[in-house]
Amino acid sequence: MKPTIRDVAKRAGVSISTVSRVMNAPDTVTEDKRLRVLEAIEELKYQPNSFARGLIYRKSYTLGLLIPDIENLYYAGIIRGMQDACIKLGYSLMICNTDRDEGRLLAYIDAFHEKQVDGVIFASDKLIPEYYEKLAGYRIPFVLVSSHSYEYEVPSVEVDDEAGAYDAVKFLIELGHRKIAMIGFNDPNSVAGPPRCRGFARALAEAGLEHNSGNIVFASHRFEHAYDAARELFAKYPDTTAVFCVADEFAMGVISYLKDRSILVPGQVSVVGFDNVRMAGMFIPKLTTIAQPMYEMGYRSVEKLHELLATGRVQVTRERLQHRLIVRESTREK
Amino acid sequence: MKPTIRDVAKRAGVSISTVSRVMNAPDTVTEDKRLRVLEAIEELKYQPNSFARGLIYRKSYTLGLLIPDIENLYYAGIIRGMQDACIKLGYSLMICNTDRDEGRLLAYIDAFHEKQVDGVIFASDKLIPEYYEKLAGYRIPFVLVSSHSYEYEVPSVEVDDEAGAYDAVKFLIELGHRKIAMIGFNDPNSVAGPPRCRGFARALAEAGLEHNSGNIVFASHRFEHAYDAARELFAKYPDTTAVFCVADEFAMGVISYLKDRSILVPGQVSVVGFDNVRMAGMFIPKLTTIAQPMYEMGYRSVEKLHELLATGRVQVTRERLQHRLIVRESTREK
Repeated sequence: MKPTIRDVAKRAGVSISTVSRVMNAPDTVTEDKRLRVLEAIEELKYQPNSFARGLIYRKSYTLGLLIPDIENLYYAGIIRGMQDACIKLGYSLMICNTDRDEGRLLAYIDAFHEKQVDGVIFASDKLIPEYYEKLAGYRIPFVLVSSHSYEYEVPSVEVDDEAGAYDAVKFLIELGHRKIAMIGFNDPNSVAGPPRCRGFARALAEAGLEHNSGNIVFASHRFEHAYDAARELFAKYPDTTAVFCVADEFAMGVISYLKDRSILVPGQVSVVGFDNVRMAGMFIPKLTTIAQPMYEMGYRSVEKLHELLATGRVQVTRERLQHRLIVRESTREK
Repeated sequence: MKPTIRDVAKRAGVSISTVSRVMNAPDTVTEDKRLRVLEAIEELKYQPNSFARGLIYRKSYTLGLLIPDIENLYYAGIIRGMQDACIKLGYSLMICNTDRDEGRLLAYIDAFHEKQVDGVIFASDKLIPEYYEKLAGYRIPFVLVSSHSYEYEVPSVEVDDEAGAYDAVKFLIELGHRKIAMIGFNDPNSVAGPPRCRGFARALAEAGLEHNSGNIVFASHRFEHAYDAARELFAKYPDTTAVFCVADEFAMGVISYLKDRSILVPGQVSVVGFDNVRMAGMFIPKLTTIAQPMYEMGYRSVEKLHELLATGRVQVTRERLQHRLIVRESTREK
């Protein structure tokens, strides 16, 4: 039988609350009692378990993560950074896959409350009032990653989506492309979607190519949808010579479509992705892309949540990390 | 202030242990007391939190998962199945990435004990005595997925690795290939590695091609290693016309190497993978592969752990699910 806090109190001849105070706030206990308690803890090899610790400290040392799709390589990179930060800071990470289902997401927040997670990281989706109110109602501190909120004062870590898209399209323009199209996110709750469209339009406008700025076809989050979107795009705008895709997986879908039509990438059409997931460097051709520092984003989001938990506030509410263009094989001069 | 079990007891005029019994084993409480407790629960809107529930029921409704590499698409598929089963059965899943590091894995087992997970799923790695003894010492029930143990009586869910490899190589032989090589796992703790080598050798022997059965080069788990292994393979056995790879990611690495050498796949060399990860159908060329039912494996492993937790035993200790050959674009008749 493992010893309990009650056994420690009995052996030391003190009350349970004194044992708790020795662990929490030792300065409030007389030296004599403190030594007796520490002796008893040692003799009994007492280890407070996490339930008892939760009741004593009101902390579970567990963080909850809400992500839309664990099979998306983008999140795998972020989770890796989160886990390393969790190990450093002494947290466990409970990962929940929402499938972008509102009901499931709300149910997970209930579960997090039940398990008394110390805080939650909310990835990618838009922070709609239902989510905010549920988390705030439970008084669960949380941060956003790959997302942000202007309606609510919630700490966030992300890249500058507008600037990332702008850099991708500017690069295509510098390569000499004039007929540039885009595959965007059709998810109405997408946080990254609208700013990436604006970045696309700004780069075109600066180069006097405004007439292209409506050449956008939208897709859901997966390869197959981008494949279909590419069919639609080239049916509408058959003389497109370069495509900016808002995700690497979209770029792969577009390249697959073009390959099936025997259109060469980058020989005839250049394609740029976004994210720099691990597969981007493994695909044939290897993808030119806008790299997000996924590992660092995951790591920082945990550090930020920890800062919030430890101090009640964060120094920088909306933190932006640096993206960068990586040129590989899927783009070529026009 | 949220009501506690103490408030419920006070309002109902019973002891705390009576409230606990009403929630656990209502038949052991007189109807009069039971109704008073239920009334008090309702009036106070009492919800046992998971810490208190842990102390009352000694259950945390949390399962721990130890996986080697969350960025590997193989595990993403398995995790999806696990999460759906967890939702159905009322568990939360705590996912921990071990990086195949023994020290980290043992530390996670300590954390699982601390958090009193109800059970653990252990993926892929070999169950060495240190892991077994730690889990058994903490009395944490556990099951293996994509792994098995003959030394210990531990429930497991996996495919038949020997038969899967055999089917892949037999398919290449039926296509007319005679110079067949293999890229295997060099990890000494690999559970799937040795049986897949045996399946390779058996298929060759049946076709009178024993002389090929040493044509194996080994790689670690990632794309880059397989790329390098392919270089070594074609230096040693330059007239190879077909390669069996023990992972889809290896097949992608081999195809990338061949592409960089301007060797056509499947025109000059056929390549078969293993797993059928999501990327296998997205790669160019799409991979012929041995599909593992990853979703089902994840789902079944949670059901099996639940069976073990609920009844103290499982009906089938070593469960094997069915693999199947999927023919796509990376193979062709010789």
